[in-house]
Amino acid sequence: MFWGNALNPLDSRMVSTAQSGWRSFSGHKSFCSGALDSDRLIVSARQAGLDRLVIAAIPSDRKGITPHDDWDNIGQRQTDSGTVTFEEVRIEESEILQTPGPLGSTFATLRPLIAQLILSNIYLGIAEGAFRATKKYVHGETRRWLFSAAEQQSKDPYALERAGEFWLALEGARLLNDRAAALLDAAWEQNDVLSGQQRSETAIGIATAKVASIRGGMEITNRMFDVMGARSTMGRFGFDRFWRNLRTHALHDPVDYKLRELGDWALNDQEPLPTFYS
Amino acid sequence: MFWGNALNPLDSRMVSTAQSGWRSFSGHKSFCSGALDSDRLIVSARQAGLDRLVIAAIPSDRKGITPHDDWDNIGQRQTDSGTVTFEEVRIEESEILQTPGPLGSTFATLRPLIAQLILSNIYLGIAEGAFRATKKYVHGETRRWLFSAAEQQSKDPYALERAGEFWLALEGARLLNDRAAALLDAAWEQNDVLSGQQRSETAIGIATAKVASIRGGMEITNRMFDVMGARSTMGRFGFDRFWRNLRTHALHDPVDYKLRELGDWALNDQEPLPTFYS
Amino acid sequence: MFWGNALNPLDSRMVSTAQSGWRSFSGHKSFCSGALDSDRLIVSARQAGLDRLVIAAIPSDRKGITPHDDWDNIGQRQTDSGTVTFEEVRIEESEILQTPGPLGSTFATLRPLIAQLILSNIYLGIAEGAFRATKKYVHGETRRWLFSAAEQQSKDPYALERAGEFWLALEGARLLNDRAAALLDAAWEQNDVLSGQQRSETAIGIATAKVASIRGGMEITNRMFDVMGARSTMGRFGFDRFWRNLRTHALHDPVDYKLRELGDWALNDQEPLPTFYS
Amino acid sequence: MFWGNALNPLDSRMVSTAQSGWRSFSGHKSFCSGALDSDRLIVSARQAGLDRLVIAAIPSDRKGITPHDDWDNIGQRQTDSGTVTFEEVRIEESEILQTPGPLGSTFATLRPLIAQLILSNIYLGIAEGAFRATKKYVHGETRRWLFSAAEQQSKDPYALERAGEFWLALEGARLLNDRAAALLDAAWEQNDVLSGQQRSETAIGIATAKVASIRGGMEITNRMFDVMGARSTMGRFGFDRFWRNLRTHALHDPVDYKLRELGDWALNDQEPLPTFYS
Repeated sequence: MFWGNALNPLDSRMVSTAQSGWRSFSGHKSFCSGALDSDRLIVSARQAGLDRLVIAAIPSDRKGITPHDDWDNIGQRQTDSGTVTFEEVRIEESEILQTPGPLGSTFATLRPLIAQLILSNIYLGIAEGAFRATKKYVHGETRRWLFSAAEQQSKDPYALERAGEFWLALEGARLLNDRAAALLDAAWEQNDVLSGQQRSETAIGIATAKVASIRGGMEITNRMFDVMGARSTMGRFGFDRFWRNLRTHALHDPVDYKLRELGDWALNDQEPLPTFYS
Repeated sequence: MFWGNALNPLDSRMVSTAQSGWRSFSGHKSFCSGALDSDRLIVSARQAGLDRLVIAAIPSDRKGITPHDDWDNIGQRQTDSGTVTFEEVRIEESEILQTPGPLGSTFATLRPLIAQLILSNIYLGIAEGAFRATKKYVHGETRRWLFSAAEQQSKDPYALERAGEFWLALEGARLLNDRAAALLDAAWEQNDVLSGQQRSETAIGIATAKVASIRGGMEITNRMFDVMGARSTMGRFGFDRFWRNLRTHALHDPVDYKLRELGDWALNDQEPLPTFYS
Repeated sequence: MFWGNALNPLDSRMVSTAQSGWRSFSGHKSFCSGALDSDRLIVSARQAGLDRLVIAAIPSDRKGITPHDDWDNIGQRQTDSGTVTFEEVRIEESEILQTPGPLGSTFATLRPLIAQLILSNIYLGIAEGAFRATKKYVHGETRRWLFSAAEQQSKDPYALERAGEFWLALEGARLLNDRAAALLDAAWEQNDVLSGQQRSETAIGIATAKVASIRGGMEITNRMFDVMGARSTMGRFGFDRFWRNLRTHALHDPVDYKLRELGDWALNDQEPLPTFYS
Repeated sequence: MFWGNALNPLDSRMVSTAQSGWRSFSGHKSFCSGALDSDRLIVSARQAGLDRLVIAAIPSDRKGITPHDDWDNIGQRQTDSGTVTFEEVRIEESEILQTPGPLGSTFATLRPLIAQLILSNIYLGIAEGAFRATKKYVHGETRRWLFSAAEQQSKDPYALERAGEFWLALEGARLLNDRAAALLDAAWEQNDVLSGQQRSETAIGIATAKVASIRGGMEITNRMFDVMGARSTMGRFGFDRFWRNLRTHALHDPVDYKLRELGDWALNDQEPLPTFYS
């Protein structure tokens, strides 16, 4: 059973209209990762006349749903995160995520945190993959620079310092992600008695990991080429995919606003507001 | 008359063998920008049995020359910088760049500096293009972030600070490139009485401009997406081309060794050794 | 004739009360550089009941003026930027900077720009002094690190790269400051026909130079120690003065808001608002 | 019982001369933290005629030992890390650290790692202290900048982003230090069966923590002033002490060579050579 989504809360074009005992969803959603080949969909819609989202879980082959094969972005190409169109799709009340609803209780606000932690680990994974590719390439293909004092590129003083920077970023991000996972597990076990304070500490732990993963990953996917040299840009290696994938995905929500959230916590003990992004 | 090259001094596979009154060039060269559609070629070869390069200027349709359409790198795709094969190509002595030969006099060592300054201006041009694209996009397509205090993304405090960073990098690189061009013009006018000291100051001025252009350009082509947001990764915009082009081209010779050269000048008054890269 | 000031527009404790044909200034001003030993003072005061500043030029020994010897900050110690107290100091109307008054015409708004450009050059001067001290020290006192491949610290690969970074920052800042001075000269020559557009370009040129000088200077005054090593922290060298002086002075007005101003210009063609700081 | 040291292995001026059944130490040592008020000293000396160190543990009031009150560096002033002079000081064989001697077994090579981890935690502690001081100051003394959209400095968008950066650095360093301590504990428990591989992983874990602590700390102690503003440079706050203490201490051994060590591990699986610094 493969789940995709048509959930993007920033895309307000999908509207839910109340009918007698059911709802009708119509409109479009962008960035619908996995929708194309999915069995089930998580879908969100604005409730007509109200400024709130309803979320439903439905079969993907429901009448009126058209996932478009229009995902053509610079990265994350395999995720098929294209557009989905809904034309008067019938949603039963039993398919609506009811009480407490999205963000409806402290425990329910863990959902976006799970999503954020998944993102963070994807970013870290890209960074780790990029470093592994660099290491393999340097030991296989690379020639030292003409004026390097080292006998091989893998021992060049600047390649070593750069690799040290990569390691530093990776190790920090790894520990932060592991700690975030432990925090999330602990919060999850609290279930309905999860306190706001513990939820906040979990959210901050996850946000910290995510920003560190993006930072480290952007550095590595960008500067790995400086370690490998000019020939590593050959298309057959495809090393630009690391940067393209991370660059695309890391824009899911702005890193500047995550930093602001961390700063508000650190400086003002301000707990982060639970939203679809934090 | 369009000139291409088969010059890459790091690719030692092309060999020049002396014949009676002419030379025979055989072998391969990589990174031969423009060779494919050229009328004339600048070509270098190792002199058989000697550790020195000979350079010739010849018609591209000379018998035995095969430019391959095999350039497939992650950036600079329109430059057709593929491989060229020479099979016993006859080169007349009159086609050899004779006295003083490459790097053969102080004045002759301006040639690699001209190449370096061209590179520097290409990098700056990419950075300027990326910023221009960002500016246009932000005023056309971008939505502010959900939690931004600004009414539009172009007035978001973090977008503004980021754009300020871009401006700072661009302005510095622009002045450094202009100054480098003035230094090169002045050195050129000295012709054969060009002093080593003036040549060094010119070389350092150009290297400084080049490193600044790479630094600024990498920052802008990478972080322009943070200003524009997630939707700017759509393939139809092609905004990744700025990063891919710069990332590929900036590896022409390692930026770390340029920095080392600048440091040796700044700290030790060490004049840079004239090479094919400095 | 030495001029000091009691001008700080952010310190609103000094009040000007209109009398018959003259004004009475009472209150305190902080950050009054040079007031202590001055012959003349530029002084600002809030006009009682109005939200505007009046500025006067007066002899420092005027009755009622007490400059305090209370400047004790972490840097810029020789500037004697302490507090000055005014007790019912009589100011003649002829001593008031009248029409057009501060920021009262486009030409008059060059005054804060002159101040900003002076600051920028002070920052650059500190950075240059720090680099010169580093260069001298490295050639005199420094031992190479135990595991360095170089024979002396001045040839260590990391010291050279670091020095290259310093050079890069200094060269950019030097050109930006020179360009800013040329812009200011040109604007000054326009006198009363100075256009808003030219004033803005001048302001942006100066702000760009200032941010670059702060950035470069903070990097150099901070990391020069990495090039010189542990023994360079000995008190008798006093090398911390570069950092302390720059750190103190660079807070005159926040660099983040200068960057924001640059970004608003670059992204939105927004001309900077003339203020006492821009 | 307070222990100080006269151990600096880079200062080769102290020589050990073998006598009949004892040794005589003569010479000088610099950077002797805590020697001045100590009850006991750890002291190192070059064995005359050999290129190896001997280390002894002795009472500080032994005849011939003169600790000088000459520590006058820009930071770490309370550590009294001045010079100690030894004049024909008699050292018994029982006071020499015998078999296995310094670096004499894998287990013995944990000693420099303990020192390195202590340093790392000192650096982190300085960074944490600096952040705490910033937080307190911002809520007590700071005014917002004139043109800030926020009502108070603690909510200024740039102050928040900066604080977010500080938090990010601190959290990473905290986790890396805790992990390093766990690695060291585990290695310590192995005692004489400690493997080279486990020793290496421990060394790398500690080096990673140390570089992260220095990086984060330098950023915080330097840029905390940007969050606090110009008045925070007043001498009575003494906020420069954080930078001065860290800047001085972080030069104990060069961070560039630590990074190189990390890079060699990451890129080449090269285990770090046990030395007095790693």
